[in-house]
Amino acid sequence: MVVLDGGGDRPVPEFGEKTPLEAAYTPNLDALAGMGINGLLHPIATGIRTGSDTAHLSLFGYDPYEVYTGRGPFEAAGAGVMGKKGDVAFRCNFATVNEEGEITDRRAGRIRSGTDMLASALNGMEYNGIMMTVKEGTEHRAILLLHGDGLSAAVSDVDPHKARTHFLRCEPLDDSPEARRTAEAVNYFVEESWHILRNHEVNLMRERDGLPPANILLPRGGGVFPDIEEFGRKYGLRAAAITGVTLITGIVRLLGMNVIDVEGATGGIDSNFSAKLTAAVSALEKNHFVFVNLKAPDIAGHDGDAALKKEIFERIDAAFTVILGAMAERDDIILAVTSDHSTPVSVMDHSGDPVPLLIAGHGVRPDDVAEFGERAAMNGGLGHMNGRDLMPELLNLSGRAEKFGA
Amino acid sequence: MVVLDGGGDRPVPEFGEKTPLEAAYTPNLDALAGMGINGLLHPIATGIRTGSDTAHLSLFGYDPYEVYTGRGPFEAAGAGVMGKKGDVAFRCNFATVNEEGEITDRRAGRIRSGTDMLASALNGMEYNGIMMTVKEGTEHRAILLLHGDGLSAAVSDVDPHKARTHFLRCEPLDDSPEARRTAEAVNYFVEESWHILRNHEVNLMRERDGLPPANILLPRGGGVFPDIEEFGRKYGLRAAAITGVTLITGIVRLLGMNVIDVEGATGGIDSNFSAKLTAAVSALEKNHFVFVNLKAPDIAGHDGDAALKKEIFERIDAAFTVILGAMAERDDIILAVTSDHSTPVSVMDHSGDPVPLLIAGHGVRPDDVAEFGERAAMNGGLGHMNGRDLMPELLNLSGRAEKFGA
Repeated sequence: MVVLDGGGDRPVPEFGEKTPLEAAYTPNLDALAGMGINGLLHPIATGIRTGSDTAHLSLFGYDPYEVYTGRGPFEAAGAGVMGKKGDVAFRCNFATVNEEGEITDRRAGRIRSGTDMLASALNGMEYNGIMMTVKEGTEHRAILLLHGDGLSAAVSDVDPHKARTHFLRCEPLDDSPEARRTAEAVNYFVEESWHILRNHEVNLMRERDGLPPANILLPRGGGVFPDIEEFGRKYGLRAAAITGVTLITGIVRLLGMNVIDVEGATGGIDSNFSAKLTAAVSALEKNHFVFVNLKAPDIAGHDGDAALKKEIFERIDAAFTVILGAMAERDDIILAVTSDHSTPVSVMDHSGDPVPLLIAGHGVRPDDVAEFGERAAMNGGLGHMNGRDLMPELLNLSGRAEKFGA
Repeated sequence: MVVLDGGGDRPVPEFGEKTPLEAAYTPNLDALAGMGINGLLHPIATGIRTGSDTAHLSLFGYDPYEVYTGRGPFEAAGAGVMGKKGDVAFRCNFATVNEEGEITDRRAGRIRSGTDMLASALNGMEYNGIMMTVKEGTEHRAILLLHGDGLSAAVSDVDPHKARTHFLRCEPLDDSPEARRTAEAVNYFVEESWHILRNHEVNLMRERDGLPPANILLPRGGGVFPDIEEFGRKYGLRAAAITGVTLITGIVRLLGMNVIDVEGATGGIDSNFSAKLTAAVSALEKNHFVFVNLKAPDIAGHDGDAALKKEIFERIDAAFTVILGAMAERDDIILAVTSDHSTPVSVMDHSGDPVPLLIAGHGVRPDDVAEFGERAAMNGGLGHMNGRDLMPELLNLSGRAEKFGA
């Protein structure tokens, strides 16, 4: 399953009202569309404007309305902090506060180095039987994980999401003892982080260099680690994933997929698509299911850059040579190419428009579609599908579906 | 509603990548597709690999995840043993055991005659307020029905599904008193069956002839009779069914349809399709809804015999002359032709691929499809439908749908 992140789009005037994918020269994807069966996929359901996280959960066959508990746990897992069911994870910023506790820089000057030492200094605290894990992320980002009995994510953010104001107290958002207990632990943690970080060697050095010290950690967006059935167990598959995006890495880690690191896979527009798809083909030797996320189209969509998005599709298409080669050599590969959502360059954000889906491989009933694109997919033999129907269809075509009934 | 059992398929190389249905010469079905509206039907939902039983329930508008309680009750009803809600039915084998209770033949030499007398000898036992009904099936098969209060299907099989081992004790699979009570009754029954059958005249004769005696009855696959609303009551229709398959007969009996026996309707590849469809047209005189199952395509699919499957479609097509004739004479027939699942010859078992559906009759909006087949149906005006949408559509087209709202 190859996901062209944010791949769907809307008509672009400078492309004669074609979408970037339609305007791009994509002979390999077109050949796969011609071999296979095509359709339009609504990542969650018609018109639903999905996030990348919720959409991927849906593509993997989970109900995001049931298992998605907020971004915290998925970001935590992406950063390598795996909680257990009931643990509460927060995304955090290293920030700069003055002596009065007023925030002077929400991102501590987008601090780039030393956060590993700062996180270490905070890691392993305990309060009232609650264990606290802290792990640095990219730049000023970090994760706080609370582990213990009787926790709740119904607590307010400490990060006020703006500077020139005192950081906030974490407040319970309902009357439960769990929310009160969690809020107390968070407040204890924030005070301690200020106390410990203000005198930390990394910050003393930063102050000597005239840089804002990362002297407090501000949690936000708490979420409970969900009780998700592992993907491998759900489908009876050994599964691997290749992704350069922390959030998506978090999802596949939480689902128990084997995460494969690929040299040059950055999750950016400069990512080595060819290396990722080559690694995916190799991973089929030891796995039944291999997932690849290519983030670049989404980035171009958010930037509103139609020409870049078109060019990215052409580079991705060239990388598909390795997939076509593998499928010519062996007849047991069922390939799905789709997107997790549209990120139209005219919107510069996710939209709820459906995305093209192609499925190719031995046993597939081909339709008359000969091009991979939004409009061509309208005439495909798959018609319209919701994201959660994709895995059952792939299990069916690969001979891995269990029979219901006699 | 005519169901071509297991009719859907995948591309077959020797037919130039056409499916058996596409490769077959089917002028009558093509004419009906041309008159009518077409689409692809997912018997339960996209990619779901259905049994015949669960799929038929779905086609009749029931949720199989709700009403399907295992094969036992449907096989029982098919054999003419109708239980009430809460009764527990088992499929059984007449088997041969030695003096130590070790199974020497799981099918008692596939005994062909005398099982009616053996079943009679066991029928009508009572244990602890539980009434036991026993009825012979085809060859070595039989049904055991337990009727009484406080029963459960959460009990293990007595049949070990292999020979050279002692038959098993029926054990409760949960902690409920119902499961314990049911298991006790089953164990009592099995011991009694051994006791009664070992000395039965039929078996003494078999032993004299050097045949393995059918000296025990081994239950398996217990299921509770479901609480299914009768089809006729659900839709306000008088309904009849023509089917040669025990399992499907069981389903339509449980749904309260009037079962019509047709001379020459065997449920095999030699079945008289013409007689069945002629009987179906006649049955329209006294019924609002007539259902026909033609089992033969599924048999050819399971056998992996593409040429046979193609030939069967051609014979079925010829039989459709009587339907075309009836529809030319009267304008109140709404016809649906579809399948309960695909049984691709390349898979030799059911798959989750959708099946073609045609609906023809007065008032139907025809589309541009002029052929009855998997690929032609991709372009049909019905698009993709799930099995449970079929009955509402047929009620609508036949002017029998109730208005919801004002």
